Amino acid sequence: MAVGHNPFPEMHSVKGIKLGSTNVGIKQTVRDDILVIEMAAGGSCAAVFTQNAFCAAPVHLAKSHLNQEPRWLLINSGNANAGTGKQGLQDAFACCASLAGEVDGLAQQVLPFSTGVIGEPLPVAKLTSGLAAAVANLAEDHWPQAAQAIMTTDTFAKGASEIISIAGQPVTITGISKGAGMIQPNMATMLGFIATDASIEAGLLQQSLAAAAEHSFNRISVDGDTSTNDACVLLASAGAAAPEISADTPEYEVFNAALHRVCKRLAELIIRDGEGATKLMRIVVEQADTVAEAVLVAKTIAHSPLVKTAFFASDPNWGRILAAVGRAGVENLELEKIEIYLGTVCIVENGGRSPSYTEQDGQRVMNQPEITITVRLGRGAVSEEVLTCDFSYDYVRINAEYRT
Amino acid sequence: MAVGHNPFPEMHSVKGIKLGSTNVGIKQTVRDDILVIEMAAGGSCAAVFTQNAFCAAPVHLAKSHLNQEPRWLLINSGNANAGTGKQGLQDAFACCASLAGEVDGLAQQVLPFSTGVIGEPLPVAKLTSGLAAAVANLAEDHWPQAAQAIMTTDTFAKGASEIISIAGQPVTITGISKGAGMIQPNMATMLGFIATDASIEAGLLQQSLAAAAEHSFNRISVDGDTSTNDACVLLASAGAAAPEISADTPEYEVFNAALHRVCKRLAELIIRDGEGATKLMRIVVEQADTVAEAVLVAKTIAHSPLVKTAFFASDPNWGRILAAVGRAGVENLELEKIEIYLGTVCIVENGGRSPSYTEQDGQRVMNQPEITITVRLGRGAVSEEVLTCDFSYDYVRINAEYRT
Repeated sequence: MAVGHNPFPEMHSVKGIKLGSTNVGIKQTVRDDILVIEMAAGGSCAAVFTQNAFCAAPVHLAKSHLNQEPRWLLINSGNANAGTGKQGLQDAFACCASLAGEVDGLAQQVLPFSTGVIGEPLPVAKLTSGLAAAVANLAEDHWPQAAQAIMTTDTFAKGASEIISIAGQPVTITGISKGAGMIQPNMATMLGFIATDASIEAGLLQQSLAAAAEHSFNRISVDGDTSTNDACVLLASAGAAAPEISADTPEYEVFNAALHRVCKRLAELIIRDGEGATKLMRIVVEQADTVAEAVLVAKTIAHSPLVKTAFFASDPNWGRILAAVGRAGVENLELEKIEIYLGTVCIVENGGRSPSYTEQDGQRVMNQPEITITVRLGRGAVSEEVLTCDFSYDYVRINAEYRT
Repeated sequence: MAVGHNPFPEMHSVKGIKLGSTNVGIKQTVRDDILVIEMAAGGSCAAVFTQNAFCAAPVHLAKSHLNQEPRWLLINSGNANAGTGKQGLQDAFACCASLAGEVDGLAQQVLPFSTGVIGEPLPVAKLTSGLAAAVANLAEDHWPQAAQAIMTTDTFAKGASEIISIAGQPVTITGISKGAGMIQPNMATMLGFIATDASIEAGLLQQSLAAAAEHSFNRISVDGDTSTNDACVLLASAGAAAPEISADTPEYEVFNAALHRVCKRLAELIIRDGEGATKLMRIVVEQADTVAEAVLVAKTIAHSPLVKTAFFASDPNWGRILAAVGRAGVENLELEKIEIYLGTVCIVENGGRSPSYTEQDGQRVMNQPEITITVRLGRGAVSEEVLTCDFSYDYVRINAEYRT
């Protein structure tokens, strides 16, 4: 199940970035489950990682390799290599070293990423057995195969791609992401791999990625569970003819805006494919005093099992939204000032149900597959938006059967 | 569905406390849906209420009536009278006034309580039409009928009762409660009505109730959603022959311990009857530095949809517990010091899976209907326990169909 029709888009190749994948049978027997991404020498790399205190072994390693001129990403699905202690770190490093041998690089130039079940040893021999094949498969136009190879419970591959103009020259930004459960990225993200042929220094690139991730991946939630393995990487190969992008220039603004759009699209696709999702809910909190309280209110609604099951049932049971706003923990909320809308239908104003509200109007909105819930707090001028999905029988089924 | 066999217990009558119920057809057509509890003159009353910012009209009114020598509680199920604005307050007061007329008291001496759907006008005429019958039905031995009358999605009536000895004289504590969804009482509780024939001054009684509620009702969660209508009331009729209970005496200790047991039992029954529950999970966090961090870790596990669906499936997918501990937000957690147990089986130690752990051992524990999860943080000496239940297809069904 997924919300909307989400065809895989045209993916513009990024000069200097090649992708190669293969199947080694970690959990999948058919789909590719390991992916190598190679960047030509001379590029830069930025990354953001999960804030989960128990971040996985590959996350530890990728963080420590990030400032050692990384040129390769090694990604596997089917096993998270999390909760695996010292052995997990050794296993992740062994995979990096093995890939380095294949490509004539250094183990420290490989950033490893894993996604899948937590707590089981990484099958190192299986994984490394496929590296030669993945490397042999490296090509600039393999984004579609790469998007498939990183999927776990995803029902469709996720990609976004744009070509912008920097100083009159085309610059490409292309990325892939995967969900679909344990999704509430916290100051970081799930797995996302984005590449550009722009030329941009690593520190500046990191600023761009951090800002884009904060307002895209960090504004989505499937189930409120922050993964141990979240990571998003942005590679800049400098392969385009465009000149280097510097801070505080119009070109940097153009680049950031495009990166933001790509990240938002990749984040939205994750919600559209949230485990068991039948509805996309866009929760907009307006008139907040601070970003923190706007996000708090939006996420409290997004995480309420009662709100999510009501949306699954297309039931305009708006009292559950009201209750979630009330329990969010915002100090000195004034009920009388708050307005709540389902789509464009006002349901709550002046401390109670709007006189203009009819169940029929509410039902009309709820029947739609994509619904905007707007909460106006009447406290300030800050707006934030969080995307989530509903809670269905299939969410329970998928997560009850996950390891079987 | 409910966890365990939960027969309604023997309920000892409380001298000076009478209960009367009837059906007025608010939502139920068969079961009683309004309840009057009357306390003889000369008793005292304590209460704790929801911390939801949008607390319901009856909660507002009950709070303001609490220090006006209340003698009657008026409870309805089927309609929460929440999100109903000024009209809701007028409606709740009209019901209090109507009951006061029947019993020759003052409207201010009536505490109103409502539970059911949020946002629909209280059917005042329907409700008041049954007051004469409920009052005519008042009797000291009607606790079982009272426990039935306050039910919403509950599948069984909940009660607890004890007789203790104060200065050689018997003192009774008897109470009822209801769940079963929108349950994460926050410094307060869902609906609970407890009575004692002890003689105890209102201020001291309030202290007893606040302490007992904090470690019972405030340590349970079905779905993390804090209701707009939570309330727990303790009536002390002074009808027993035992002398008045004073602060800082052994008798006060005995009374508090018994009250705590009654509250804990009533709270546990709510979880055993959590919406769709098939398993009771007792989450014990030990070796925490503070109560706050112990409760935070326990509730993060208790609210994780991934943990809850794994327990529904009897799947020892302990990585989800680990991930929940890691995302709880405790500063400077050291994974190496943490131990996690399923029942008595150690699953995590020294930063990874315990060498002694086998899937078979984990499965054996998971197959049980009542499971203790113990997390040792290795930071201090504080322990806390939170009760929750699993997340099943039936939870989705119940909450998708709630208003139909």
